[in-house]
Formats: sequence, C-alpha cells, structure tokens
Amino acid sequence: MYIKKQRLLTPGPTPLLPSALHAMMGSDIHHRTEDFRNLYKQVLSDLKEVLSTSNDVLVLVASGTGALEAATQNFFSPGDEVVVCSAGKFGERWVELMKAWGMKATVLSAPYGDAVQPEKVEQALAQNPNIKGVFVQASETSTGTQHDVKRMGLAVKKTDAVFVVDAITGIGTMPLNIDAWGLDVVIGGSQKAFMIPPGLAFLAVSSKAWNMAESSKTSRYYFDLKREKKNAVNGESAWTPNTALLLAFAESLKFIKSIGMDKLVENAQLLARATREAVTGLGLQLFSSAPGSSVTAVRPPAGMDSGVIVKEFRSRFNAIITNGQGSMKGQIFRLAHLGYFDFHDLFAIIAELEIILAAQGHSVRFGSGVATVQNVYADALPKEAALALS
Amino acid sequence: MYIKKQRLLTPGPTPLLPSALHAMMGSDIHHRTEDFRNLYKQVLSDLKEVLSTSNDVLVLVASGTGALEAATQNFFSPGDEVVVCSAGKFGERWVELMKAWGMKATVLSAPYGDAVQPEKVEQALAQNPNIKGVFVQASETSTGTQHDVKRMGLAVKKTDAVFVVDAITGIGTMPLNIDAWGLDVVIGGSQKAFMIPPGLAFLAVSSKAWNMAESSKTSRYYFDLKREKKNAVNGESAWTPNTALLLAFAESLKFIKSIGMDKLVENAQLLARATREAVTGLGLQLFSSAPGSSVTAVRPPAGMDSGVIVKEFRSRFNAIITNGQGSMKGQIFRLAHLGYFDFHDLFAIIAELEIILAAQGHSVRFGSGVATVQNVYADALPKEAALALS
Repeated sequence: MYIKKQRLLTPGPTPLLPSALHAMMGSDIHHRTEDFRNLYKQVLSDLKEVLSTSNDVLVLVASGTGALEAATQNFFSPGDEVVVCSAGKFGERWVELMKAWGMKATVLSAPYGDAVQPEKVEQALAQNPNIKGVFVQASETSTGTQHDVKRMGLAVKKTDAVFVVDAITGIGTMPLNIDAWGLDVVIGGSQKAFMIPPGLAFLAVSSKAWNMAESSKTSRYYFDLKREKKNAVNGESAWTPNTALLLAFAESLKFIKSIGMDKLVENAQLLARATREAVTGLGLQLFSSAPGSSVTAVRPPAGMDSGVIVKEFRSRFNAIITNGQGSMKGQIFRLAHLGYFDFHDLFAIIAELEIILAAQGHSVRFGSGVATVQNVYADALPKEAALALS
Repeated sequence: MYIKKQRLLTPGPTPLLPSALHAMMGSDIHHRTEDFRNLYKQVLSDLKEVLSTSNDVLVLVASGTGALEAATQNFFSPGDEVVVCSAGKFGERWVELMKAWGMKATVLSAPYGDAVQPEKVEQALAQNPNIKGVFVQASETSTGTQHDVKRMGLAVKKTDAVFVVDAITGIGTMPLNIDAWGLDVVIGGSQKAFMIPPGLAFLAVSSKAWNMAESSKTSRYYFDLKREKKNAVNGESAWTPNTALLLAFAESLKFIKSIGMDKLVENAQLLARATREAVTGLGLQLFSSAPGSSVTAVRPPAGMDSGVIVKEFRSRFNAIITNGQGSMKGQIFRLAHLGYFDFHDLFAIIAELEIILAAQGHSVRFGSGVATVQNVYADALPKEAALALS
C-alpha cells in the first residue's frame, strides 16, 4: 500500500471528465475573436439543450454563490417580500443574501436532514399576495436532502412571484422540468454534475423573471444579467470570460449530450440508491428523511465522530470525502454521486468504508456492503443481462 | 451505469502518474540547450539511483524491443554462441533476434506458464565454455512468470559470458540487485512500472559488457550504445530525444525516489498476492507455476474462453485488461499490478470480476473475492493498525 492515488470523491469539485480537462490545454485563444464567439454560442446552445428549456441561458465567471447573488440583484428590489426555504447551510445562504440586499424574507425552515414541505410554500403564498419571490435549493448539498421543486414551482406559477431555484447540485441528479414546472430562475455551477473545475456559474431565466427585472431597483454592475443576455446573442460575454473552463465546458456538454441528461440523472440515482442500501446494510443510518442523489449523508456509528471516517479515507486510501458542514461537522460524512462517478468508484469506496468501520471497532463482515452494491448493479441491468446473473 | 470511466489496467501501458502526464505539457523546449542537458543528466542520474547500480545507464527513443535489439547488436557478433531462456512470447522474441543477427542460440525452453530452471543455465554454461551471452526475461509478461535471475546471474558471473536481462516488467516488481548478481545488461521500458507512456527504453550496462562490445562485429547505427554513452556524459542524446517523455520520466523518477524502489516492488507484490488469493478463492486457477508480481495470469472457469472475461470488463465497466497472447489467447486473462496501481483499483477489479463470473454462470458469492483482498490489506498493515482491525 505504498501507492495511493489521490481520488476526489466530493460533491463539488467532482471528478473531472478527462476530455474536458485536456481541452483546457487549448486556452491560448483570445475572447474577442470569431473562434471564441463560436465556442461561446455552442456552449450556450448545448447548455440550453441539456437543460431542456426554452428560457434564456447565461454563463457567469463566478462560483455558484455569484449566481445566487445575481438572481437576488437582478429580479428583486430592496424591501421586496419573499419566501425562503431553508433546510441547511445553503438555505441559510439565501437568508444571508436576502439580508445583504435588504429584502423582507419569510423563512420556512426545516431541521437539518429534513425538507421544507411544499404545503408550507403554498400556505405562505396564500397568506401573502405580495410575495415577489420564492427561493429554494433543489438539492441541499449540506444534508443530502432533496426538495419537491415540482410541486413548489406549480404553486408559485399561479402567483406573480418568481421561483428561484438553486439547482447547483440538483442539475444532473434529479429530473428538473424547468419550463413546465415554472422554475423561473435555475442556477447551476461548473464543478458539479458538469464534471469540470469550479469557476463558472450559470442561470436559466424565464420571461416572467425578465419582466420582474424591469422594475428591479437593486444596484448591480458585474452581475448585470440583461447586459450578459444582450452580449450572449452575439456570442460575447460582458466581461473577460474564463476561456479555459469554457473549453472544458464545451467538452462536458458534448459528453452529456452523448449519453443524455436523463441518463446522467439515472446514473447518480442508481449510485445513490446502491450507497443508501450498502450503508444501511452495514448498520449505519442515513441523515436525511428525503435523500437526494447528489450526495448521501450518513451518520457514523453511535459515539464516533464522522471526522474519523473522513480522515481515515484520506490517510488509508488518499480518497477525499466530505464531513458535515457547520454544526453538522462530526455528525455526518457524505458520499457523492453527481457527475463523473461510476460503479467502479463505488465498489472501492464501500470496500474502503468497510475496512475503516472495522478498524474503528464496528462489526463488519468484509465484502457485505460491496455485495449490496453488486446486487443493485445486477438488478439495474437490462432484463436479459440480469437474467444471466441470477 | 451510464457513466463508465475508461480505465487502463494492463501490464503496459500501465496507468499514468498524473504529475508525469502533466509534465509533458512543458515539452516546448529544445534539446540542444542547457535546460535540456540538465533534464537529461537528472533523468540518467535518478534512473541509476532507483536501479541501485554503479553501471552506466542509457536511454533510447524506442520501445523495449529496440533496447533488446541494441543489446544484441552492441555486445555480440554474428556466429556467437549464446544461451536463450524461452518461457513465453518474449522469450521467443529473443530467439527471433538471435536469428535475425546470425547468432547460434541454444534455446532452453519451458512450457508456457513455467519458468526455465537456473540449473539448466548452469548446465549449458558448463557444457560449452564458448558461450558469449545468456538471455532471459526477469519477468515473462505473457505468462505472468518470474525467472530466478539471481541464481542465473551468479552462474553467468563465473564465466566470460554476458548476462542480458529483459527486465521490462521485472523492474519495479521484483528485487533486482544488478551489480551483486552480475546482471550485465538490464533492459527497461517507460510504459511499465515507470508509469509513463510508451516510447522510451533504457539499459544498464556493466563494464564486462562494455569490454565485450569492443570486439563486436555486428552492424549498427541508430542503436550505437558507445555513442550514446559518450554523449550522455554531457547530458546529450545521440539523436533527437523524446522531450515530452523525458519530462514525464523525470517526474516519475522523482515519485519513485520519494517512495523508494523497494516500496514500489512491495506494492506490486502485495497487490499480486491479494489477486492470487482472491481469484483462487473464487475457484479459478493460476496459469503460472512461478507467478511474478508484474501481472497475474488466470485461467477462466473450465469451458469458458478468457476473451469473454476481457470483453465483459470492457463492455460492462470500460476497464481494459489483457487476454493471453498468441496460442495462450482464450486460455488466460491477465490482471496487472506494476507501477501506478493501488488497493482501490483492486477492490473494484475483483468486484467486477465477481459480477462477470456470475453473469457467465460461475457460482460466486458477491463480495467474497473483495473480502479476500480486504483481508490481505488488513494483514499487511503495520502491526498496531492491524490489531485495531482484528
């Protein structure tokens, strides 16, 4: 065990797609050229295609939080009454943004590990016809919890409010019917299911949101989405674009188109299901009551700090997984599934988890968790191949 | 299972060391500059260090076979009587080279899967005092078999013959005491335990071999080792060098120095041991009676073509493993361990093998082979860590 390859197994940055990584080597291009304009148009068009939306799609040189702020600045005004669903660290980020920009937020909180029920959103909208916006995480990465954005979206759609969905780890891990469900502003990031490094954020913006933008009185400059939209038509970015990441993004979008966004989602869902079954089979408990497929949050055995498991993955196997964030630190560890993950990864991760649990005195039969994953693999095969396995 | 990362798991090319791969991006250098000379001197000096030899070390722009031919051309003459150990496809390559260069070879053959016993070499040397050279593979990659080059070397050392060792998959997978064992010409290649792409071969040459070279009457030009030696002193190569691979080689040598060549060998030995125990535990048989640690050759279940297993690894998991070569095709499949392989790889490979065997109707308890690998991992831990696991 003198060779231990470093393996990035976190919910962001996620493992890199090799063809995207290699494409970054071509970044000695200039951004005010026809070559770049063609690249940028292709990225915007492919992104729109994989998101299956007729809404405008815009890309920003920013991490995901930049796009959260852009959504706040461009469509709303100080004093606007809004509803925020908060079920974890990223829900709390919405609350902080509302505060920073002087908006009046009604916060619908769920305890860490639970989801905000869509009924609560429906009630809040019914109680206050002045609500201008509803903010939520499609997937709350900090707890591995998924929100019912379909039902929330259909409720918001009946009102004048704009529905803003942080789908940074939702895209590629759950179905998102942006147009039909009324997801007015959908936010994503490069370092998640798109399998490239951090540095790009993007938004899909509905005409309802653009209409709201007309009356926005919030100050803004760098994140001026109307300016980005105007430039994007000509294949230009308002400011200097991140050429290396756009070259990578073009490759990852080509890859996602080749397999299909629905299949990328199924891939994450299948790995998440296998992980849930394996860890519960090993005697551990899931943290979330509404687990999504971007990342699975797992409670360590009683009395054990989850940081021990995170450290053991790194020291024994050079594998990087994540601890809980904030007050969840020590309470959970998180295994990711979004983007460029496959069964090969999961067979090894579960074998390693078994070893770590055994080393910490937890009763484990070696290979039993791996067998659970193998059975999920076998069950998920096309019928004729599955028959051969039985 | 819509994401299947391509994984190169063959005994050459082997998985690439990331830092070496990245270093190739710096290959816009010129080879007749001080920068290059410093690089080349560093590579030769580090290579000599990791091989633990006081012999001269030379690098060629060629694949391993080029260095086999260079050894034939530079130290011998047409009509020379030599002994060739042949225990597989690469032993047969020596026989072909002897024929191509008009040498009189006594071939000591072992059936595929067996090793040539050193006693046979001792006998051949005793019977004919005119023997000028003995040729062998330290590790016969085609059958996963290891030769006792120590005992052979000590026998050759007592004679005037030169001992030529194809150690292309031997280096980094078995102890090789070049100077003490009298390994006069030791040949290696970049794409094996050195974890970089194919394209470089190298030789370590003893003074005994150089003395023999003085009387060689074989024609040569590109592979003129005396010319390479003369240039190497100044950090120059005789012909245009492969700058990209030398940049990569410098990184891989730095990595090997950082862990130690002995630890690289132990790593391969441990993975090979775990593989042997896992596959035999799954009811399969090893092909070799003297298995080495570069690659493990495994017989498929009775009645099954090994090509099915190779194809299933590729189609189900996008993992590239190797079939048997030549007449061994269909009879064995081979799992590699040399270079940049770790336990994470092996946990997944064995989980995948279990699935493939089950799909082909072989009786397998899922996770049982993985558990064998986990137990080898646990046994190999330092004592205090192993105690915690029991």
